[in-house]
Amino acid sequence: MTNRRKIINDPVYGFISIPNDLVYDLMGHPWFQRLRNIRQLGLSSLVYPGAVHSRFQHCLGAMYLTGLAVHTLRSKGTDISAEEEEGVLAAILLHDIGHGPFSHALEHSLIEDMPHETMSLLIMEELNRTLEGRLETAIAIFRGEYPRKFFHDLVTGQMDMDRLDYLRRDSFFTGVIEGSVGSDRIIRMLNVSDDRLVVDEKGIYSVEKFLIARRMMYWQVYNHRTVVSAEKLLTSLLVRARQVTAAGHRLFATPALAYFLEPRHNRAANEDKATLVGHFSALDESDIISATKVWIHCGDRVLADLCRRFVCRDLLAIELQKTPFDPARVGETAQKTMETLGLSADEVRYYVNTGDVFNQTYAPGTPEVRILLKNGSTPDITAVSDLFDKEALSEKVTKYYLCYPKEIIK
Amino acid sequence: MTNRRKIINDPVYGFISIPNDLVYDLMGHPWFQRLRNIRQLGLSSLVYPGAVHSRFQHCLGAMYLTGLAVHTLRSKGTDISAEEEEGVLAAILLHDIGHGPFSHALEHSLIEDMPHETMSLLIMEELNRTLEGRLETAIAIFRGEYPRKFFHDLVTGQMDMDRLDYLRRDSFFTGVIEGSVGSDRIIRMLNVSDDRLVVDEKGIYSVEKFLIARRMMYWQVYNHRTVVSAEKLLTSLLVRARQVTAAGHRLFATPALAYFLEPRHNRAANEDKATLVGHFSALDESDIISATKVWIHCGDRVLADLCRRFVCRDLLAIELQKTPFDPARVGETAQKTMETLGLSADEVRYYVNTGDVFNQTYAPGTPEVRILLKNGSTPDITAVSDLFDKEALSEKVTKYYLCYPKEIIK
Amino acid sequence: MTNRRKIINDPVYGFISIPNDLVYDLMGHPWFQRLRNIRQLGLSSLVYPGAVHSRFQHCLGAMYLTGLAVHTLRSKGTDISAEEEEGVLAAILLHDIGHGPFSHALEHSLIEDMPHETMSLLIMEELNRTLEGRLETAIAIFRGEYPRKFFHDLVTGQMDMDRLDYLRRDSFFTGVIEGSVGSDRIIRMLNVSDDRLVVDEKGIYSVEKFLIARRMMYWQVYNHRTVVSAEKLLTSLLVRARQVTAAGHRLFATPALAYFLEPRHNRAANEDKATLVGHFSALDESDIISATKVWIHCGDRVLADLCRRFVCRDLLAIELQKTPFDPARVGETAQKTMETLGLSADEVRYYVNTGDVFNQTYAPGTPEVRILLKNGSTPDITAVSDLFDKEALSEKVTKYYLCYPKEIIK
Amino acid sequence: MTNRRKIINDPVYGFISIPNDLVYDLMGHPWFQRLRNIRQLGLSSLVYPGAVHSRFQHCLGAMYLTGLAVHTLRSKGTDISAEEEEGVLAAILLHDIGHGPFSHALEHSLIEDMPHETMSLLIMEELNRTLEGRLETAIAIFRGEYPRKFFHDLVTGQMDMDRLDYLRRDSFFTGVIEGSVGSDRIIRMLNVSDDRLVVDEKGIYSVEKFLIARRMMYWQVYNHRTVVSAEKLLTSLLVRARQVTAAGHRLFATPALAYFLEPRHNRAANEDKATLVGHFSALDESDIISATKVWIHCGDRVLADLCRRFVCRDLLAIELQKTPFDPARVGETAQKTMETLGLSADEVRYYVNTGDVFNQTYAPGTPEVRILLKNGSTPDITAVSDLFDKEALSEKVTKYYLCYPKEIIK
Repeated sequence: MTNRRKIINDPVYGFISIPNDLVYDLMGHPWFQRLRNIRQLGLSSLVYPGAVHSRFQHCLGAMYLTGLAVHTLRSKGTDISAEEEEGVLAAILLHDIGHGPFSHALEHSLIEDMPHETMSLLIMEELNRTLEGRLETAIAIFRGEYPRKFFHDLVTGQMDMDRLDYLRRDSFFTGVIEGSVGSDRIIRMLNVSDDRLVVDEKGIYSVEKFLIARRMMYWQVYNHRTVVSAEKLLTSLLVRARQVTAAGHRLFATPALAYFLEPRHNRAANEDKATLVGHFSALDESDIISATKVWIHCGDRVLADLCRRFVCRDLLAIELQKTPFDPARVGETAQKTMETLGLSADEVRYYVNTGDVFNQTYAPGTPEVRILLKNGSTPDITAVSDLFDKEALSEKVTKYYLCYPKEIIK
Repeated sequence: MTNRRKIINDPVYGFISIPNDLVYDLMGHPWFQRLRNIRQLGLSSLVYPGAVHSRFQHCLGAMYLTGLAVHTLRSKGTDISAEEEEGVLAAILLHDIGHGPFSHALEHSLIEDMPHETMSLLIMEELNRTLEGRLETAIAIFRGEYPRKFFHDLVTGQMDMDRLDYLRRDSFFTGVIEGSVGSDRIIRMLNVSDDRLVVDEKGIYSVEKFLIARRMMYWQVYNHRTVVSAEKLLTSLLVRARQVTAAGHRLFATPALAYFLEPRHNRAANEDKATLVGHFSALDESDIISATKVWIHCGDRVLADLCRRFVCRDLLAIELQKTPFDPARVGETAQKTMETLGLSADEVRYYVNTGDVFNQTYAPGTPEVRILLKNGSTPDITAVSDLFDKEALSEKVTKYYLCYPKEIIK
Repeated sequence: MTNRRKIINDPVYGFISIPNDLVYDLMGHPWFQRLRNIRQLGLSSLVYPGAVHSRFQHCLGAMYLTGLAVHTLRSKGTDISAEEEEGVLAAILLHDIGHGPFSHALEHSLIEDMPHETMSLLIMEELNRTLEGRLETAIAIFRGEYPRKFFHDLVTGQMDMDRLDYLRRDSFFTGVIEGSVGSDRIIRMLNVSDDRLVVDEKGIYSVEKFLIARRMMYWQVYNHRTVVSAEKLLTSLLVRARQVTAAGHRLFATPALAYFLEPRHNRAANEDKATLVGHFSALDESDIISATKVWIHCGDRVLADLCRRFVCRDLLAIELQKTPFDPARVGETAQKTMETLGLSADEVRYYVNTGDVFNQTYAPGTPEVRILLKNGSTPDITAVSDLFDKEALSEKVTKYYLCYPKEIIK
Repeated sequence: MTNRRKIINDPVYGFISIPNDLVYDLMGHPWFQRLRNIRQLGLSSLVYPGAVHSRFQHCLGAMYLTGLAVHTLRSKGTDISAEEEEGVLAAILLHDIGHGPFSHALEHSLIEDMPHETMSLLIMEELNRTLEGRLETAIAIFRGEYPRKFFHDLVTGQMDMDRLDYLRRDSFFTGVIEGSVGSDRIIRMLNVSDDRLVVDEKGIYSVEKFLIARRMMYWQVYNHRTVVSAEKLLTSLLVRARQVTAAGHRLFATPALAYFLEPRHNRAANEDKATLVGHFSALDESDIISATKVWIHCGDRVLADLCRRFVCRDLLAIELQKTPFDPARVGETAQKTMETLGLSADEVRYYVNTGDVFNQTYAPGTPEVRILLKNGSTPDITAVSDLFDKEALSEKVTKYYLCYPKEIIK
């Protein structure tokens, strides 16, 4: 009976086996089950309708790839104990457990002082308490404090199992097939040198391909103009909702959402970590989506209108360019919006936004992608690639956006 | 600019073009956008984590296949006017618009007297009013009243574009690759004879393959034991919630959900169609999911417990067999459950359920799958297949289930 | 260095590892390398241009699947020794080594008294001699003489690894995607009961799907009318070439081909197995193809014409029907052909042919497909399938063909 | 009946329709049918067993993509006449018709003064004569003499339909999935500006991805060390065979192969183009493969040994490095080989070879890949890509190899 549950169908890899009891127990925990109701790509499905896959699937997939990597490294002579294997699998399984619904928008509105990595760690520590220390190794690996650093590299690095899975999976579900990476081939080329994760020399082309695929996915999917516009709208909406709440109006909300709508200072004083984790772990996309549908009919004209736009996918227009927008242009746009929609100066900032999105193809901090040459040295990929030079590859490419209501250009 | 939006990435077919303005306008309507938040397979993602694709995608996909079919039929000499093409595309696009969230569970609890086909028609008629009659042809085709019957066959039949898309799509997202059907090949073999849809003779094997694939998906996915158990749990939970509401307790709920929790007789009197459609169209999965999370903490012990089980995926045990369960066995199970969980006789019926699921591989009513032989006759597939005989193929296969809490077998 | 060679890219499964030294040595042997120049589907690529995959690939693929099956069976508690594993892998790797080029046509013309299974065994025995007995277990398994019969079932049965690979592979390369089988799923459901290979109960639908897929591939690909016509033409051509040789004309041919063109009685007398194997193992498709191109210019008018048709893909017309062709019809066709092409009664039999092709979806001899029920019994699939009854499934479906030159219908 | 033949199954694209009679007639011509027996990647299948796809398939595929491109360009407002469409489709269909078997090795041994592009043109002109001028437009487009240059760009350019098909197809059949390109997406972004082929601005990332994919395929597949070694061996073998022939020995060979084994000066004098084309068009892989098997037993010790190595895949060892090999090293290697194998100084040059292979990711000659910006300008991709600079991308990367018998390192 138990055995039956231990193989899971996955459209990307075929079948995923649950490798041990710890993983099985973690997967069954409500905090992990919650990830079923949080989409990996948040609002990207507004542009790519297939991209509704959940963070639950991604975490399983990353764990599966990590298992393959452990197998490969062992076959090349790296000793990995059962306890270490259990630790690294648990670490990768839980690496995204701190994500809230529509993570990007949420972190810029209701939970602005808590990046998801911090939250993941907080939740792992809570879990560790209830599991009587079974996550010690996983947490050490996740924090980068485990002595054998290559385990951390598998979980968090320029070419970790997280990225390998999400690129392949996001490519699969969006239908942007060029973003696909040969995870099998790359994993077969992994190795360990001086306790760090490295790639065998003949894997250079695969690494290059991986970096380009990631870059493409950034501009084609993650930073797609319409996705940016939708995230901006949701962010504005949530900021406004908090504003309205702070002004004393009680908006329809689940208790978990209500907790985060409250002004921060109200809850900060007596907040302990367990309480925070408790509320956070009750939150998924349904809290946000159901609320926005109700708020369409709320008393605040601005919030109601923002919600209507969000629910009906009547998004803001967006322009992207390589230089910051001229403040005069932004001012004119705001002015025109105020006139067209009859908004006050305070209100218009929910409708007209400027800002930037960026991507760095390769961030040459630690842990870098190191290539194991036949002579045993392990230079950075940028030092041995014929194609890339470090400057071009590491350059941070920024694009600036300006959002405004479509009504003003009609 | 407009042009840019007219091609949509789809992981199953690659690219889907929006063929005309009517389809474009329908897709943008909030009632259609709502389908983004309703998963095609409801609770199946509890077993197949990849199966989170939405009804929105399916409707787009079915429309795409219908477009291919129109192209094929024209190339074989069947005249199809632009108006008819627009009509059949709109009809297939909207054929599932009457689905609510977790359709199966909902139709057995809150909306028990309104099958989704009826609701789809109701919504189409409302839409037709606001669109000033642009859906006349679509509605005639959907109702089977359009004179050229093959259009209706494309939308609703033993081998319609709805089924072609959902089998291929469900197969893709679940990862159950054997359920995949060669939609391209089948569509290329479609033809029209005596105004009915038929399949060219050399398509016999593809049709057989299609029927087997559909049958497999029924037992492997749609009627999967765990999916049945989960749907049963959600049904019980919603029935209980209505019960609790009828007893005068006010449960947390969005207005749309609250409307359907009210006793039917309270709302029936003054309910007009527009009101019903309005409330129904505001409902999606987020209303249900967010409520169940809140109800975990409600005052009714039974509802709270059912919700906890649902949210934490702590499902009921389920047994399947080919004969009905002996009432004595059911009685004993209920008795043991009452003792173990401390439930009353009234309460235990939410925990112990028996019933049946079934599948009929081929339902030889109209419209059947007809094969166009070289001599021009169009016998039923069962008359010309070497493999199938009508009796075996048309047999309704029923399986009986018994659900109960896992606690009683521990 | 050696290690590098031990992983092989395969477009169907991704990567195939060479599991042990015996397999490595066998693969490097010239007799096995020969399979690179023999296409799995012979002349099917005349209809499906992608279907040019070699028997070399298929044998590797079947070995890969057998490795997975061994892994699954072990995980379910069946002990399999390293020697047994080596044996069954070698047996499946070599199961097709007795195939000649265009096997079907060859066995009906030049090598008519030696089915490929017999030749495979002959070659294995020769190999075993040179390998000093390392193939003892493999040969015992191949012959069905190894005590634990499930090993033989894996190699030769109604649902063996041979069929699993060729269905999936032929489907992949032809593009007939409906023929694909879920080899992963089926293999995960294999088990052993009473030393025979069985399928776990929940695999019933997959088995049904497998049987239907195989049936479809038979009629859509293996027995495709144009493929049958091409094979018939090649057979006629080779029979004629032997005839011409017997008449004392020396045709251009490689020594290996020349050997088989010689009248059988000339070589039978002093022929030992080693000589036969030696000549046979030198033969691949290039011997046949290069000869037919040269024979276009040979002195025998009939042979030259048949070769021209073959090389230029100017095939014979073919009709298929479910009943044998009326001898009168065949006679008339021959008569008309003699007149149109100016052929004698002896010559016309190379141009006008009738015969039959058939397929049996399920051959209920040993080894059958047995399903392991929960009660431990292992009935035949036909006894537990809702859909199939034994008679329909086991029925041999025969189609009759008549080939003749297209010129007579112009 | 005719209609039936007009759709071809292709595992890469699904179905390919034959668009017009000219294409149909060309495909049926023996010179085109010959491409069925010439593998697209020659000896690469020695490393990638799946890579046995034929040039026939590739030519069909490139024609299919060109048809899609014509469709896209028309939808964006570029007028293309039926005659032009027929011309460009014929041109791409025939662009590789001048390839011989194992093209690379052949052009370095038996046909050293005739690159395949020249031969393609020669054959097209012969065909044009027999087709009474129906190929005029195709030839003009192929030669780059047709006034509207974008047609030539589709056939021969940095990102032509030839490359789009071969990258995707080679990736499919080798299993090197990272080499796959999103041909659909790229084709949808094609446009025409100033009568040249350009790519819409939003296609920049796809173009980058395409260039990287192509580069990867070069090093991973086309210039794979083992493939280079095998080609070198076949080249040596053919050079030796010609040498042996020149010395007056008559080797077994088909007439077509015999023609090219003859010393060039013997045939040059009275050779006309029709004769050359006639012999060349009779040559395919079977002539070479069958001969090498026979030559294993020929009187020339060196040729016999080279053939044995080739047939048994007992290839030469190969080293690759980024700088030319030191002549001293080469000399020592030759010396050691002479001693080990007992070869003369004249003979050793067939066994010890040095040379180079190279790849240029982007060759900035005409026709370049031009991007159509919103302002209407069409800069080169290297001018607008964030990632690439022209120098790095256009750099010719050369690797030097040294081949020698494995025996000397044992």
